[in-house]
Amino acid sequence: VADATARDLGEAGLISAVAARLPQGSGVLLGPGDDAAVVAAPDGRVVATTDVLVEGVHFRRDWSPAYAVGRKAAAANLADVAAMGAVPTALLVGLAAPGDLPVEWALGLADGLRDEAAVVGASVVGGDTVRGDAVVVSVTALGDLGGRAPVTRAGARAGDVVVGVGLLSWSALGLRALLVPDLEERLAGLLPGLLPSAREALDRAVDEHRSPTVPYSAGPALADLGATAMCDASDGLVADLLSMAVASGVRVELEREGVEALDGDRQWLRDVLGDDAVEHALLHGGEGHALLATVPSPALPAAERLGGVRLGRVVAGEGVGWRTGGELVPEGWEHFS
Amino acid sequence: VADATARDLGEAGLISAVAARLPQGSGVLLGPGDDAAVVAAPDGRVVATTDVLVEGVHFRRDWSPAYAVGRKAAAANLADVAAMGAVPTALLVGLAAPGDLPVEWALGLADGLRDEAAVVGASVVGGDTVRGDAVVVSVTALGDLGGRAPVTRAGARAGDVVVGVGLLSWSALGLRALLVPDLEERLAGLLPGLLPSAREALDRAVDEHRSPTVPYSAGPALADLGATAMCDASDGLVADLLSMAVASGVRVELEREGVEALDGDRQWLRDVLGDDAVEHALLHGGEGHALLATVPSPALPAAERLGGVRLGRVVAGEGVGWRTGGELVPEGWEHFS
Repeated sequence: VADATARDLGEAGLISAVAARLPQGSGVLLGPGDDAAVVAAPDGRVVATTDVLVEGVHFRRDWSPAYAVGRKAAAANLADVAAMGAVPTALLVGLAAPGDLPVEWALGLADGLRDEAAVVGASVVGGDTVRGDAVVVSVTALGDLGGRAPVTRAGARAGDVVVGVGLLSWSALGLRALLVPDLEERLAGLLPGLLPSAREALDRAVDEHRSPTVPYSAGPALADLGATAMCDASDGLVADLLSMAVASGVRVELEREGVEALDGDRQWLRDVLGDDAVEHALLHGGEGHALLATVPSPALPAAERLGGVRLGRVVAGEGVGWRTGGELVPEGWEHFS
Repeated sequence: VADATARDLGEAGLISAVAARLPQGSGVLLGPGDDAAVVAAPDGRVVATTDVLVEGVHFRRDWSPAYAVGRKAAAANLADVAAMGAVPTALLVGLAAPGDLPVEWALGLADGLRDEAAVVGASVVGGDTVRGDAVVVSVTALGDLGGRAPVTRAGARAGDVVVGVGLLSWSALGLRALLVPDLEERLAGLLPGLLPSAREALDRAVDEHRSPTVPYSAGPALADLGATAMCDASDGLVADLLSMAVASGVRVELEREGVEALDGDRQWLRDVLGDDAVEHALLHGGEGHALLATVPSPALPAAERLGGVRLGRVVAGEGVGWRTGGELVPEGWEHFS
C-alpha cells in the first residue's frame, strides 16, 4: 500500500482508506459512506463556507507535505467559520487528483484535514474523490452559532476599536523565504553566532506558510464580547479591513505600534528578507488567518485578555489609512493574473 | 463584458458578477459576500454532501454549455440530499478555472446552478473562485430532514420491495450518442420517415446527459412512506444496488420487466445505438440520478403513486442478481483508470 497510487486503489478503495482514518465526533449523526452526511445543527442555523486550493497556485507538492496542505486547507475554512462568531462542526472535502497520485499523499491530506478539524472539535464527514490533471482540494466547513448573531463585515461603527488576534505576516514571509533564490547567501552574510536564531525564525515562518495557526476560539469569544464586525485576514490586512470598511460604510485608521505588536519580533526576518518584504507581508500578506474584529471601546480590555491587540480605530469616512496620515490600498494577490 | 475573461474581471469582480445573479430564498439568513453564509436548519440537523466535476472527465466545454454543466453539478448534489429523505436548502460552489475562462461561461454556470437549485427551492449561498489549469467545479449541497430520520443505504430488509423513480439509462445513452463516431451513418441507415423520431430520442438522451432530470421530491416522499434504504443511481443501477445490499446485509433481485419499464420506450435508441449499448446503460450507466429505494411491500401502491416503479425485491443473501437467475456485477466507471 505504501507505493500504491490512486489508480491502483480505485475511487472506492481510496475513499475507504481515507474514511477509515477519520474519527467522527458526537455532533456527527451520520459520517462518510452514504449519499450524504448528517451533522447536528443545534442552533437551528448552519454556517457554511467553501475554499478551493489548487496545486501550483496555493501549494506545491514539492514544498508542502500532504499533511500540511490538509491542515492549511482545513484552516482556511475553519477560520472563515470562526470569523462569523461560530464554532466549526464539520468539513467536507472534494479532491481532484491525477491517477498517479500516491495513496500516501491522499492519506496525508486526510490526516492533516482531520487534525486541524480536531483542534476545534470538528470532524471530516464526507467528500468526493475524482480524477483530474492537477491536485485540487475543495473544502467546505460547517459551523454552529450557538445562539449568537452572525458577525458580518458590515457592522463596524465609528468609535469602535479595531482588534487583531493571531499572526498577520508570518505565512507570507514563509512563502517569501521559500521563493528567495539567494537565501543561503543572505544567511551566510550574517555573523555565524546569529545564524541559528535566523534559521529558527525562517523555519517558523515557513511552517506558518505550510499550515497557519489560527486563533479559532477568539471568533466566538469576540462575538460574545459584542464585536460589531469580524473577518479573517486571509486576503491581507489592508484588503480585508477595506472590505470591512466598505461593507460597514466607515473608515479604518491603523496604528503602527499595534500592527507591529501583533506579529511580535521579526527582526531576524528583516535581517534576512529585508525591510520591504516584512512591511509588505504585514500589510498585504495573505493566508495568515489572523482574526480582525471591531469592538466597542469598553470591550477592549476583555478582547486583550483573549490575546487581542489594538490595531487602530473606526472613524467616520471611507477607506483604510494610517492614523498618523497616509492612505493604504490593497496590493494583494490576484488569482487570475 | 461579453468578451471579458476571468482575468479581466479579477477574482472579486467575478464573484460580484456571479453573486448579483443569485437570488436568496427565505431560508438564507446570510448570503454570499461575507466570510461564510448562514442557512436555516430548522430541523436541528443538516444534511451535507460534496461532488466534484472536472472538465474533460465529467463534462467537456465543447459538448455542454456552461448552463448545462451548472445544472448537472447542482443536480448531482441535490439528488444526494434527496436520497437521504431531505429537502435541499443551499449550495456552495468552488470553482477553479483558467484565467482565460470567458466570464460568460462562469455566469452561465452560476445560472445553471441557480436554476437547478430553484427547482427544489434552494439557493446558491456561497463559494470560492480560484485559478487553475482546468475547470473544476466542486459543489456542496445542504439539506433539511424536516424531522425525518435520514434514510441510509443500510436499512433494506428481506421482504422489502425495490422501487425506482426517474430515468436510469438516458444520460448514459446521451453520452454514448455524443461519443459514437458514425452516428450520422447509423441514422442514414434508417428509413427516412423514421429519422425525426430517432433524432428526437437522441436529442432527449443528450439533453439528459447534459443536465439530468431528478425526481427530487420523491426522496422525502419515499422517506415518509417508510423507505428502509435509499440512494441515487449515479454510479449505475447495479453498482448502487450492490452498495445498498452490502450496507444492508441483504440480496437484491431485479425483475426485468420493472427495470425496462422505468426508462420507458427506448426503441429508437436501440435502433441507432444498438441493443448492447442500451442494456449496458440500463444496468451500469451512471449520472442518471434516478432514486432507488427499498420499501415495505404494503407501501408499494403509495410509492407507485409517486411515480415509483417496482424494480425487484430484497431477499436474504448477498449481492445483486436477476430474479430469474444470473448474477449482476458492476461494470461502472472507474475515475482513476
